[in-house]
Amino acid sequence: MNEKIRHLREKLKSLNMDGMIVSNPVSIKYLTNIDADGILLITRKENVFLTYSMYLEMVKSTVKINDEVIVADFREIDKDDYENFFLFCENVGFEENYVTYKEYHFLKQKYKINNLSETEDIIEKLREVKDEEEIENIRHACEITDACFEHLKDFIKIGKSEKEIAFEIEMYFRSHGADGLAFDTIVAIGENASNPHWVPGDKKVQMADLILIDMGCKVNGYSSDMTRMMFMGCILEEYKPAYDLVLKNIERAENELKEYASIKTISQMVESDLKVNNYTLMHALGHGVGMETHERPYINVKNDTFLKENTAIAIEPGIYLPGKYGIRIEDTILVTKNGCEVLTKCPKTYTVI
Amino acid sequence: MNEKIRHLREKLKSLNMDGMIVSNPVSIKYLTNIDADGILLITRKENVFLTYSMYLEMVKSTVKINDEVIVADFREIDKDDYENFFLFCENVGFEENYVTYKEYHFLKQKYKINNLSETEDIIEKLREVKDEEEIENIRHACEITDACFEHLKDFIKIGKSEKEIAFEIEMYFRSHGADGLAFDTIVAIGENASNPHWVPGDKKVQMADLILIDMGCKVNGYSSDMTRMMFMGCILEEYKPAYDLVLKNIERAENELKEYASIKTISQMVESDLKVNNYTLMHALGHGVGMETHERPYINVKNDTFLKENTAIAIEPGIYLPGKYGIRIEDTILVTKNGCEVLTKCPKTYTVI
Repeated sequence: MNEKIRHLREKLKSLNMDGMIVSNPVSIKYLTNIDADGILLITRKENVFLTYSMYLEMVKSTVKINDEVIVADFREIDKDDYENFFLFCENVGFEENYVTYKEYHFLKQKYKINNLSETEDIIEKLREVKDEEEIENIRHACEITDACFEHLKDFIKIGKSEKEIAFEIEMYFRSHGADGLAFDTIVAIGENASNPHWVPGDKKVQMADLILIDMGCKVNGYSSDMTRMMFMGCILEEYKPAYDLVLKNIERAENELKEYASIKTISQMVESDLKVNNYTLMHALGHGVGMETHERPYINVKNDTFLKENTAIAIEPGIYLPGKYGIRIEDTILVTKNGCEVLTKCPKTYTVI
Repeated sequence: MNEKIRHLREKLKSLNMDGMIVSNPVSIKYLTNIDADGILLITRKENVFLTYSMYLEMVKSTVKINDEVIVADFREIDKDDYENFFLFCENVGFEENYVTYKEYHFLKQKYKINNLSETEDIIEKLREVKDEEEIENIRHACEITDACFEHLKDFIKIGKSEKEIAFEIEMYFRSHGADGLAFDTIVAIGENASNPHWVPGDKKVQMADLILIDMGCKVNGYSSDMTRMMFMGCILEEYKPAYDLVLKNIERAENELKEYASIKTISQMVESDLKVNNYTLMHALGHGVGMETHERPYINVKNDTFLKENTAIAIEPGIYLPGKYGIRIEDTILVTKNGCEVLTKCPKTYTVI
């Protein structure tokens, strides 16, 4: 059986569960590499992926013998089969944060399960710690992102619009080995940067403008996530205190990252330093990065857990002054035993172009 | 109050419900035009949209006075407020096909609702019938799609790959007034067309190849969906019987479309004609088209309902011969009182390029 499914089975056992219905396609892809509509059943003795006729060929060619996943066509499964999958199971898990209310009742009835139980993000928690191959993909995505930033320093000129810059980023990613965008790129000029979720528009770069660029790509399904600021021609004095404060805080946070570091403590450290300077951190300090650009662990003051080795996270302190400007700096980072490795390596010092 | 919310309130009343919690962002956008994270509460007397601080400005500028939607910041809502929203409500609806199992229990507790009841796609059903503005957007998306097909007749040459063609389609849409793609474009050459969900790869067009193109764009959030075949240089005799059969069936189906037409009957008509000719329709005959590219009404033999005036649908009969080739022809169509208007107007006769 593959390592990831084996790991999941151990966790299920510790939750006193005899099986699980896996519905979320991200979970299914994580566990089996299968990228098709269907449902994965972790039964007492077998792993079964049920799918539609049209995906059968593709799925069968994806699954390796070592995975020990049986692939079957929904059309070949009858009422008795459904009821037999979990026949002697006391407790069967499901994904309560993915499965809809309606689907839950459907599953319970179809598979005749008495105790269809919440699994508390069991698979998302497994995904927090990356294996070598996953780290390699994230590392590669970060390298392409770094190279894109270098490219943008030449590309961005007075008169280029947010949309044009965002488009160039997408084209760069696609033509340099990425699958595509990890998320909708944010390019925000001047006061637009004060909206953390700005959608690129027609505003054009002018002399002395500040430009916020939040971008990331995917490599083999794994994301990078990086934010940098650029300054056209010069950097206005009024930007410097906020920039320096954000920079200081991402660096302080990065200095604290390592296995067993407290997520809450690091988040509080940044929040309170901004507060002392009369700013508010409007969003979380960061988030996990992997198959999804935002995934566990969520880095904020409410998170009582500790960092784990080989977790990839993004740290993104920001200051937003509505109607004026915004500053955010963000790295994708790998947590290690004794510290961390910043995977997005573009300099975080003032980038005047 | 705006028409759509007023309409929803009437439907809620007929279901004996005093209010509703609307969670699906598509529903929220449909009802209010708001495109931001948050939750819409249809309470006994008010419509309230709760959102996060960073979206407040944007949301307030979207909502018109006439919408009668109160916008509030989650941070300003305390325990009592939550419990007061539905204080004297017997039955409050929720979206059982969108809300997760976990979220359901969270909502029930947070808003202190005794009967949080299923609404059976109440909003999705409203969305089936389009108003003038919605039809105009779909019409416009179809026009751009038609024009793109014309453009492709010149663009596609021997040696172009599926990926290159798919990329050209995306670029065409973006540079001709569309928001972007309505869905991932399918470009499938030769035997690849036998997979209805083919993902464009590196296969290149050769002489006498058949090319299946399934594409659509969005205009102001509304989709088009069209599939056409192209034949490079000539059309092989072996393709003609399957092509003619698919063409005959989309035309027969389109002749039957009108208000009150039976979805089941039309679907059966096509399925049985394919069967008589020893083919199987591997997927549904069609689906509604609107804010989502696949939405209600689903056009298949299991659907016992009747078509409504001003419903936009896609009809897409297809024949798939694994390892050989596939043929699909698809139109986006507006159902009218006495018939229908085919909105994708590219000729469906043999397109030899």
